[in-house]
Amino acid sequence: MNDVPLFQRVTLIGIGLIGSSLARVMREQNLAGEIVVTTRREETLNRAIDLGLCDRGTLDMGDAVSGADLVIVCTPMGSYAAVGKAIAKHLKPGAIISDVGSVKEPVFETLGKALPDTVHLVPGHPIAGTEHSGPDAGFATLFKNRWTLLTPAKGTDQAAVDKVIDLWQRAGAMVEVMDAHHHDQVLAITSHLPHLIAYTIVGTATDLGDDLKQEVIQFSASGFRDFTRIAASDPTMWRDIFLTNKDAVLEVLGRFDEDLTELKRAIRKGDGEKLFEHFTRTRAIRRGIIDADQA
Amino acid sequence: MNDVPLFQRVTLIGIGLIGSSLARVMREQNLAGEIVVTTRREETLNRAIDLGLCDRGTLDMGDAVSGADLVIVCTPMGSYAAVGKAIAKHLKPGAIISDVGSVKEPVFETLGKALPDTVHLVPGHPIAGTEHSGPDAGFATLFKNRWTLLTPAKGTDQAAVDKVIDLWQRAGAMVEVMDAHHHDQVLAITSHLPHLIAYTIVGTATDLGDDLKQEVIQFSASGFRDFTRIAASDPTMWRDIFLTNKDAVLEVLGRFDEDLTELKRAIRKGDGEKLFEHFTRTRAIRRGIIDADQA
Repeated sequence: MNDVPLFQRVTLIGIGLIGSSLARVMREQNLAGEIVVTTRREETLNRAIDLGLCDRGTLDMGDAVSGADLVIVCTPMGSYAAVGKAIAKHLKPGAIISDVGSVKEPVFETLGKALPDTVHLVPGHPIAGTEHSGPDAGFATLFKNRWTLLTPAKGTDQAAVDKVIDLWQRAGAMVEVMDAHHHDQVLAITSHLPHLIAYTIVGTATDLGDDLKQEVIQFSASGFRDFTRIAASDPTMWRDIFLTNKDAVLEVLGRFDEDLTELKRAIRKGDGEKLFEHFTRTRAIRRGIIDADQA
Repeated sequence: MNDVPLFQRVTLIGIGLIGSSLARVMREQNLAGEIVVTTRREETLNRAIDLGLCDRGTLDMGDAVSGADLVIVCTPMGSYAAVGKAIAKHLKPGAIISDVGSVKEPVFETLGKALPDTVHLVPGHPIAGTEHSGPDAGFATLFKNRWTLLTPAKGTDQAAVDKVIDLWQRAGAMVEVMDAHHHDQVLAITSHLPHLIAYTIVGTATDLGDDLKQEVIQFSASGFRDFTRIAASDPTMWRDIFLTNKDAVLEVLGRFDEDLTELKRAIRKGDGEKLFEHFTRTRAIRRGIIDADQA
């Protein structure tokens, strides 16, 4: 831990799972001289204050960002355009604006559009989370040994990018800088498609008759249980992910559909060889992940 | 632990993850006076002997089941018909025959068909497992606090059923007796469909270009990682599950397809309300599972 905080004043817009985890680790690692929190709902703000997550809390977004060296938008992506408009004229020149949303290319259009040229936009995405939400759900070690991906536009001030890298590394994360469009393609496969599938399958089970549903819950071990954890993720956040990363999600969904149809046909035809071959192939990917020390 | 073993002689046909876990817990809880193991491959048998999983090992299946009070078939379901034929005339009258396969209705046709009327068939299915296979992968606590479902036909000798219930309960499992056809419907939803989907999605990722594939592995946290664990399950076992529970799997797959198409349409149309409503509904199922203490 350093004696001098990394940033003088950090403003968090939104204080859910990610925002409150950031607040906690920033406190712990002395990353901010002052933490200002602003929320849409008064109840959430009061809870953040009670939890000691900020030095100052306000419902006025413009007031909250005034004089901030770093502003991190931690609200659902559907709010970004409105947030951009609300904060634009209150930002101090040289301020860094970042976010934690799961889709990165649209950030330039939504949040970025309203921002003045005097500030530095460094979009970010910590690949970390739980199925819980709200200021109580956060914890300081959420980002530890997890990736945070940063997607600044070409030509972004390198000193600003470096400072955001520094923040996340001190929060325990591994950081990689990549192109926003590419980020969205990768995440469509690793995160968005799996979530959509989990939401679908759990929904399918929900529509069963009551007797069967009770048993599905009772005997949920082995497979289904993992899906329900994924499908319990924050509905607002995930709605916005699918709306903003529509093209990439529909594209991988198309591939998935083709592959599922092929396996379905193999089952219908009783083609055991094809099934065995496919199931053997997928084992290798798991090994790759264990080797990459992500398991 | 009791002084008198529950069974005098237990024969395990196959000694993979489930069989070797059974051997270990039977030793620990004194459930068998003698454990005999038989396998198809000599290498596996030698490994089982080295691991101390049996009192006697033999490649001769008929010899292995001679004089056994309980025979548990722990091989892939594709082998059941051959196993039934091989052991039928060596079984002692009054012997109990059980298994651990994931699909139950076909057991009567495959394994059961060849068996003499003098023995008691009590099919079983421990809902427990890991993505690892083989005699080294097993452990004595695998079944602890997990369900084991038994699906004897109507009219099966109650004393035989009770003894198998006793075995599994002493192995730490919670036991429920249910109809075989109903079992296969429930498991198609809770286990077989999730596995098929996980196999599909991981396969889809495997087919990506090398660059993208590397990144999918690197950034696999959040969603995809869970799927790869599921999709690393034993290929032979899962091939047989899909071949033997074909009708139930294709039926739930049809429902799943409809639901996925609906969500896909919502994404394409940008219908945030529908997505939000669906994602909110699936959260409730997770709560049900947490309440059922399966999480």
